[in-house]
Amino acid sequence: MENTHNYILPKTNLIGIGAIKDLPNELLSWKLSKVLIVTDKNMISLGYVENVEKILKSLFISYDIFDGILHPNPTVSFVEDGLTYLNKGLNIFKRNYKLIISIGGGTNHDCAKAIATVATNGGSIINYEGYNKVTKPAIPQIAINTTAGSAAELTMFAIVVDNSRKVKMTIASPFLTPFISVNDPIFMTTMPREVTASSGIDVVSHGIEAFVSTEASPITDSLALEAISLAIEYLPRAYENGNDLEAREKMMFASIMAGMAFNNAGLGYVHSMAHQLGGFYNQTHGCYNAVLLPYVFEFNSVSIPEQRILKLCEAMGAITHNRSQAVDLIIDSIEKLRATIEIPSKLSEMGLKESDIKTLSQNAIKDICSFTNPRQGFVEDFISLFKAAF
Amino acid sequence: MENTHNYILPKTNLIGIGAIKDLPNELLSWKLSKVLIVTDKNMISLGYVENVEKILKSLFISYDIFDGILHPNPTVSFVEDGLTYLNKGLNIFKRNYKLIISIGGGTNHDCAKAIATVATNGGSIINYEGYNKVTKPAIPQIAINTTAGSAAELTMFAIVVDNSRKVKMTIASPFLTPFISVNDPIFMTTMPREVTASSGIDVVSHGIEAFVSTEASPITDSLALEAISLAIEYLPRAYENGNDLEAREKMMFASIMAGMAFNNAGLGYVHSMAHQLGGFYNQTHGCYNAVLLPYVFEFNSVSIPEQRILKLCEAMGAITHNRSQAVDLIIDSIEKLRATIEIPSKLSEMGLKESDIKTLSQNAIKDICSFTNPRQGFVEDFISLFKAAF
Ligand SMILES: [Fe+2]
Ligand SMILES: [Fe+2]
Repeated sequence: MENTHNYILPKTNLIGIGAIKDLPNELLSWKLSKVLIVTDKNMISLGYVENVEKILKSLFISYDIFDGILHPNPTVSFVEDGLTYLNKGLNIFKRNYKLIISIGGGTNHDCAKAIATVATNGGSIINYEGYNKVTKPAIPQIAINTTAGSAAELTMFAIVVDNSRKVKMTIASPFLTPFISVNDPIFMTTMPREVTASSGIDVVSHGIEAFVSTEASPITDSLALEAISLAIEYLPRAYENGNDLEAREKMMFASIMAGMAFNNAGLGYVHSMAHQLGGFYNQTHGCYNAVLLPYVFEFNSVSIPEQRILKLCEAMGAITHNRSQAVDLIIDSIEKLRATIEIPSKLSEMGLKESDIKTLSQNAIKDICSFTNPRQGFVEDFISLFKAAF
Repeated sequence: MENTHNYILPKTNLIGIGAIKDLPNELLSWKLSKVLIVTDKNMISLGYVENVEKILKSLFISYDIFDGILHPNPTVSFVEDGLTYLNKGLNIFKRNYKLIISIGGGTNHDCAKAIATVATNGGSIINYEGYNKVTKPAIPQIAINTTAGSAAELTMFAIVVDNSRKVKMTIASPFLTPFISVNDPIFMTTMPREVTASSGIDVVSHGIEAFVSTEASPITDSLALEAISLAIEYLPRAYENGNDLEAREKMMFASIMAGMAFNNAGLGYVHSMAHQLGGFYNQTHGCYNAVLLPYVFEFNSVSIPEQRILKLCEAMGAITHNRSQAVDLIIDSIEKLRATIEIPSKLSEMGLKESDIKTLSQNAIKDICSFTNPRQGFVEDFISLFKAAF
C-alpha cells in the first residue's frame, strides 16, 4: 500500500546569468573560518576559481585549493589525493574545513562529494559504493557548475572509477547532496565542443531514463519532459556556436531539470551500461549514452504505457497517436541529434572490445541504475544490447 | 544583463502514501533533545499528532504541544501565544527547542514559521513583514501537511493577519523555508468538503499566477502547467468523494508542484487582492482567489505572450490556435471548476463591502505579490477589478 516519491534537492539553487552574485550573501550566515576549493587547473586558468577566491577574501574566509583532478572520469586516486591534501591542512592549521566548494563539471563535483564523505565517515570511498551506505553527513558542499550535463552539482550521486576493479562505482546517499548549487550559463560558454555534445546528450538520456523509470512521479515527469524538449531544440545550437548565450541558458535549464528528475526518479539500463563502459575504456560518459539510448529505449518500449510513449514523443517535437510510430519517431529523434552533434554511432568506435561484453553485462545488471529500469532483463539481454550497439 | 532564477525548496520532501515512515530516519541524524509541536485541537482529535508523538517517543526525544491555533487565517495573537508557550518551556527546562514540527494545513505551518522566526530574530512578527526582512535562520522546522492547497509546508512565505491594521501580512524569506516537508494523501482524506474546494482552487491560482509571473522560468513553468492540469482533472473528484485516494494523491502532487512554482516565480494580483480581503473579512483564502482569478486573468492577458496563453489553455484541457479564443476558454474553465465545487461567484457573497474597495485597492497594490504580476496597473485598476468581481 505504501507508495512514496520523496523529492530531494539542495535547498538553495542559484541559477542564471550573474547567479554567483548571491553567493556572498549565502556564505555570510555560515560564519565560516576555512574552505577547501576542489577543482582542476583548467578552471584556474579560465579565471573561474579567482571569481570565488575574491568572494572568500572579501568575507575574510581563508581557503586552500586542491586542483588535483587531472582528467574527466573521476578516479579513486583523485579522491585519495584530495583527502591527503585535506588532512594535511587539518594538521597544520588545527582547523577543520567547514565547507568544500567544487568548481567545474561533474567530475569535480563528484570528487568533492567523495572527499567530503570520507572526511567525515572515515575509511575509503570504496566502502560507500551503492545506495545509502553513507551514515554521517558529509562536509557541507557548494557546487559551482560549468557544464550542462551531469547535474552532479545538485544530485545525491557521486560516480568514481575504481581502476583496480575497472568499475565505475555509484555512491548514492542524500548526505551527498550539496547545500548550494550554482549554475551560470556564462561559465558554460567556454565548454569545448565535444564536451557540449557529450554532456548535452547526457541530459537527454537523464530525461528519458527518469521519465520511463519505475519511480517516476508527476513532479519528475514534468521536469523530465521539459528538459528533453529544451535539449532537443537547443543542443544543436549550443554545439554549433558555443557563444550562443540563449542556447547555453536553455541547455543549463535542461540539465538542471533533468537532474532534478533523475535525482528522484532514478535512471535505467542506459546508465547501467554506460557506467561499465566508463570503467573499462576512456570515452566520455555522454557518448556511450548517446549510442545506447535508442537500443535500450526499443528494448524498454514494450513495458512503457502507450499514453506515456505518446507524451514523450510529443516532448521530442513529433505528434502521433500510433504507439509503434511514436517509438520509431523517438528513436529517430535521438539518432538525428546524435549525428548532428557528431557523436559516433557504434560502441566499437569508442573502445568496446567484443570479448569484454560478457563481463560488462554481468556488471551492468548489478548497477544500481538497473533497479528502476521499466523492463527487467537478464544478463543475456545486456549482451544483446551491447552487441546491437557494437 | 543579469538574469537569475534562483530555486529554493526544502532539501527533503517526503511525499506519498506512508511518507511519514521515513521521518524517524531523518530525525536520527539531528541528535535532538527537545521539540515543539505546533498544531490545533482538530489535528489532535484526528490522531495525526499522536502519530508524530509515537515517533518522537521511540527516539527518546522530549516534546511539548502548542495547540493554540484556533481558526484558519493565522493571526498575530496566535503567533504571540505560541511564543509565550515556547519561552515558558525555555525557562523551566533550561533547554532550547531545537526543532519545531507543525502539523496541519497552511495556517499551522505559517504560524510555526512565524514563531520559529521571532524566537531567533527577536521583536514581533510585524517587524518582518515584506521580503527578506529576516536576518537570522529561524528554528529549524518540519512541516507535516494535511491539506492540498497553500503549499506552506515547502514555501518561504508565512501569511499572518494583523487584526489591529486589518492587514494580511506576507513574511517572505528563504530562512522561513522548512527543513523537511511531509505530504501523505491519507492525511488529506479527512479534509472537509469546503476545505477541499477552497484549498484546491488555491492550487489552480498558484499555478496560473506562477506561470504568468514576470519571474517565471522553464523550471517553474513545467511544474505550474502540470499542477494546473492535475487540479482541473482531479479537484472535482476529490470534492465529490473525499475518500477517492487517487484524486487526493493527484491533488497532493498538484499542490506541491504549484507550491514549488510560486515559491520561486512569485504570484500576482489575484493573491495581492485576496490577501486584503482575508485581512478585512473572514472567508477562506481560496474562495477569494476563485472569484478573482477570471477577472485578473482577463486584465493580464494583453501582457502575456500568445504562445504562453495557448500553452496554458492546453494545460487546462482545451486546444486552440486562436489567442482570444484561448483567453475565453481559460476563463470558462476556471468558472466551470469554481461552480462545480460550489464556490460563490461574487465577492459580495463573501463579505466584501463596496465602501471598503478603495482602501483594499490601495493596500493591494503594495502587496509583495503585485511586483511579479505580468501587467502593472494603478490603484484604479484594482478598484475596477474589485468592482467587476463584486
Ligand atoms: Fe548521465
Ligand atoms: Fe494561495
